[in-house]
Amino acid sequence: MVIDLQSGMSTLLKVLEVCGLISFACSGFIEARSKKMDLIGVIVVAFVTAFGGGTLRDLLLDRRPLYWVENQEYALMVFILALVAVPLVPHLRSAVAEKAIVIADAFGLGFFSILGTTFALEMDMPIFVCAMMGVITGIFGGVLRDILCNEVPMVFRGGQLYATCSFIGCWIYLILTMLDVPEMLTLGVSIAVIPALRLLALRLNWKLPG
Amino acid sequence: MVIDLQSGMSTLLKVLEVCGLISFACSGFIEARSKKMDLIGVIVVAFVTAFGGGTLRDLLLDRRPLYWVENQEYALMVFILALVAVPLVPHLRSAVAEKAIVIADAFGLGFFSILGTTFALEMDMPIFVCAMMGVITGIFGGVLRDILCNEVPMVFRGGQLYATCSFIGCWIYLILTMLDVPEMLTLGVSIAVIPALRLLALRLNWKLPG
Amino acid sequence: MVIDLQSGMSTLLKVLEVCGLISFACSGFIEARSKKMDLIGVIVVAFVTAFGGGTLRDLLLDRRPLYWVENQEYALMVFILALVAVPLVPHLRSAVAEKAIVIADAFGLGFFSILGTTFALEMDMPIFVCAMMGVITGIFGGVLRDILCNEVPMVFRGGQLYATCSFIGCWIYLILTMLDVPEMLTLGVSIAVIPALRLLALRLNWKLPG
Repeated sequence: MVIDLQSGMSTLLKVLEVCGLISFACSGFIEARSKKMDLIGVIVVAFVTAFGGGTLRDLLLDRRPLYWVENQEYALMVFILALVAVPLVPHLRSAVAEKAIVIADAFGLGFFSILGTTFALEMDMPIFVCAMMGVITGIFGGVLRDILCNEVPMVFRGGQLYATCSFIGCWIYLILTMLDVPEMLTLGVSIAVIPALRLLALRLNWKLPG
Repeated sequence: MVIDLQSGMSTLLKVLEVCGLISFACSGFIEARSKKMDLIGVIVVAFVTAFGGGTLRDLLLDRRPLYWVENQEYALMVFILALVAVPLVPHLRSAVAEKAIVIADAFGLGFFSILGTTFALEMDMPIFVCAMMGVITGIFGGVLRDILCNEVPMVFRGGQLYATCSFIGCWIYLILTMLDVPEMLTLGVSIAVIPALRLLALRLNWKLPG
Repeated sequence: MVIDLQSGMSTLLKVLEVCGLISFACSGFIEARSKKMDLIGVIVVAFVTAFGGGTLRDLLLDRRPLYWVENQEYALMVFILALVAVPLVPHLRSAVAEKAIVIADAFGLGFFSILGTTFALEMDMPIFVCAMMGVITGIFGGVLRDILCNEVPMVFRGGQLYATCSFIGCWIYLILTMLDVPEMLTLGVSIAVIPALRLLALRLNWKLPG
């Protein structure tokens, strides 16, 4: 039973990870296409959006192999997805697809933020740094996407809460870990709390002052 | 007497370091606010401006822990400063505050340029690389700030001398070190020469050709 | 005879390397000047264009010393070139010079792409990563140049094939290496194929869909 639960949990994590990567990549496709980029631009921007946050984290933590080298199948997936997506992107902008992306992106934010925190924690970084690495992993893919597309990064532009959800989730993970709550519960709660907050923020139009 | 002088010197260095960080962070606040960013944008841009040059230097030199991980109290300071500064920023743009920032920024440039050079020197980098690491540490916080704010970096845009002051100061440090001038004197002179040149350049409107 | 051929080959590689660096640096001068940057801007943008791709590759592969630290004479060359070029840049825009730069840039792309692939291969990276490191080394200097100049990177903007030539050349190198073709022939063919494809793409106006 415990084993079933654990293997079910780990399957769920994989699914969330892949959904997160795909939705990050899709946001890259859409922005690159709206800038009239060609196939190379679409591929690079999608790749940077999906793996940029994790790569920056790995550089800062001096962690090798890089996430996308260690998980080459994901890198290939994004690559092939880009080849397939170019003719499909116009359809991705339709209302249903856009909603699906917003939801998957919220889960991706949750997944990658907590993943970043766990990596920093494993390397015995101070707790404040662990929280920051989580937020960097979650948001910097999108920041780099917007820099490549020559835009002020969306996450800074005063929409509904985004980085704040990641920040809160990372601290929940860190506090539960310090309280010796079982790992699985800690992971489950903290990964769930981020998309929950994000989707609530979108629904209820929560914004930061500024 | 010698000890007093040394401890006085080291206190002075700390004060310069904190002033430099604060003024770099403030230039980040001001630019982020002028782009209508929200609280997260202000925090990230301030953080990147204050620590971006040093982080790039640490990545290039493969130096760990990173400056802001090693000096977490500074990272926390910038973080808290950002939370406090958001309602105060309009006042920071007043004439007196702006003048204070220009002066503190000149000292920050001096402090961080020489700090970057000493780190490279400690790692036995070739002398030309030491000078470049100094300039990178001094100016790249501002360059990254302007990239995040979607501007052509200010330091390249042909105002009064800025990077040049850092470059001259770094070479003075390197030459005095090679001449075996006492460390304290070398540090004092080279850190002082950069803000002196910078403030003179502003006052006398020195510019590069171009 | 064999020795002569090998030493001739290695001289040719050096010449290609220097031509590539100079042409990358020149494209930096021209873009920086068109943005009305001053001398510092021109120097930094030229430096980043020439060494940015290789530096990013070295950071990703955790390879030290960095390419421009190991080859300081090249770094100095770009530095001195920038000092000399500023008054000359207007002439560089004339038709003949621009043609020379396009050709040298094609060879630079070939040289640096294959150099990047060989470095990744030496570090036993998976083959897909080797190809990506080649493309990153070849194109990211130009990407960073355009980011510093606040433009959407040229390589993504749907002109004639550029990154694609690099990608094809890197795979040719990898396949020939796997087939145990002699190193010299492998290098020669794959470095030649990239500028050949690039110049054909320019002449025949080959573009990607998008």
